[in-house]
Amino acid sequence: MQTGGYSDFKNGLLEQATSLRARIRSGDHTATTSGLAQSLIQGNVVILPADWAADFLLYCQSNPVACPVIGISQPGDPALPELGRDIDIRTDIPEYQVFRNGERAEKVNDIQSLWQGDFVTFVLGCSFSFEDALIRSGLSIRNVEEGANVSMFRSNLATKPGGRFQGNMVVSMRPFISADAIRAIQVTTRLPKAHGAPVHIGNPELIGIRDISAPDFGDPVTVRSDELPVFWACGVTPQIALENARPPIAITHVPGKMLLTERLNEELAVL
Amino acid sequence: MQTGGYSDFKNGLLEQATSLRARIRSGDHTATTSGLAQSLIQGNVVILPADWAADFLLYCQSNPVACPVIGISQPGDPALPELGRDIDIRTDIPEYQVFRNGERAEKVNDIQSLWQGDFVTFVLGCSFSFEDALIRSGLSIRNVEEGANVSMFRSNLATKPGGRFQGNMVVSMRPFISADAIRAIQVTTRLPKAHGAPVHIGNPELIGIRDISAPDFGDPVTVRSDELPVFWACGVTPQIALENARPPIAITHVPGKMLLTERLNEELAVL
Repeated sequence: MQTGGYSDFKNGLLEQATSLRARIRSGDHTATTSGLAQSLIQGNVVILPADWAADFLLYCQSNPVACPVIGISQPGDPALPELGRDIDIRTDIPEYQVFRNGERAEKVNDIQSLWQGDFVTFVLGCSFSFEDALIRSGLSIRNVEEGANVSMFRSNLATKPGGRFQGNMVVSMRPFISADAIRAIQVTTRLPKAHGAPVHIGNPELIGIRDISAPDFGDPVTVRSDELPVFWACGVTPQIALENARPPIAITHVPGKMLLTERLNEELAVL
Repeated sequence: MQTGGYSDFKNGLLEQATSLRARIRSGDHTATTSGLAQSLIQGNVVILPADWAADFLLYCQSNPVACPVIGISQPGDPALPELGRDIDIRTDIPEYQVFRNGERAEKVNDIQSLWQGDFVTFVLGCSFSFEDALIRSGLSIRNVEEGANVSMFRSNLATKPGGRFQGNMVVSMRPFISADAIRAIQVTTRLPKAHGAPVHIGNPELIGIRDISAPDFGDPVTVRSDELPVFWACGVTPQIALENARPPIAITHVPGKMLLTERLNEELAVL
């Protein structure tokens, strides 16, 4: 983690992140964060009471492809200084999904009034990081082309239980012609903290998806006859595990509306 | 290239290579070399008169995935000291295919009587090197399981012309379930000198292959309904380019009957 001596390149990105977070904090930006501050890591967020945090951490450790932990807060502390100098997790997400006893309850634009002194925040790597890497590799991503949210599906791929958390994996899907699918596997293999390589290619039915045009989350996108659907583990997976674990309260981001950090996607690359 | 200080591990392999080559040289082994001396590089072989060698080298350089050069002899010299201390290319291949004016002519077990003072030998990396890496990664290869030669097909993927050499790519096919196909892409990406990552996955018709059960070279293998056919560039590709270039004489190995070297497959790995 760099804490000083930033190049102009990085200074420009930090300014961009700070100003975008200010807009989100003020309620001026409540939409998806797709395409914003593209070089910087965006994160999936799960906020839980401290007595649920150990189980959830075990769940993440057991399922590092779906749930790659890139940050954890101190209990009760809304800051995440390793991910961004001025992050306040109570205000810095465009839209939050509140879960009560595992049920999806209200959606809100800030959680100051819901904040508890025992809340622990988990930030997980997100597919936006690998979409950035794919675009920089010259590939075209259908959901970006079509201005849509990525298609996400509840698969039948079981995750490993961690304490009270368990459930099937949510996957995101991007269609590619075969040569680009092979390249996409190579590029995303470099980014294990952003879901890494795909978990499935080809026939959706083999992972329990009956209709590729009817995603469970996000938007449908065009899949052409000469393309393979390519499926990655998705950071929405913990929301299924939350539904199953039924903590009295939990708060996540709304899919596609992520936490903007000040760290570079490229910092997640292993090679 | 190591020339001294070999470990016992490498000494054992060298003895194995020497004794296998002696059996091939004596005519005792005329069958496929699949599964022999598995840690050692085996090579595709193309022998041409010197006035055809520059064009062929250009063809290889222009098509490094199908034609990864790992050794070239001096004109007229049947030795390849960088690939094996005692290699004599006139006797050390189980079976040779002679081409005359681009037509497949006789097959022979040694080429001493055909040798010319201007012959140049090219050795190209071979899929046996990546099959070894795949097996060491825990994957099961259908043609190995079924004791068959790999299935090879004339695709409609054009290679780049090099001088008088041009033609479509020959591809080898191995079926895998999706998760293993993804792993196979990762493993073979490490080995660019052994054809590297696949060139196609999925629908064979998209690369001009109408019947996956009727290969143009090698044997058919079982492809199950939950599997994807995965296609790699194949070292038989130059044989198509030879048919098109029509040199007065050229000699290759017979598909599957390769040159055994004394170098480790792992020496080809870039990571």
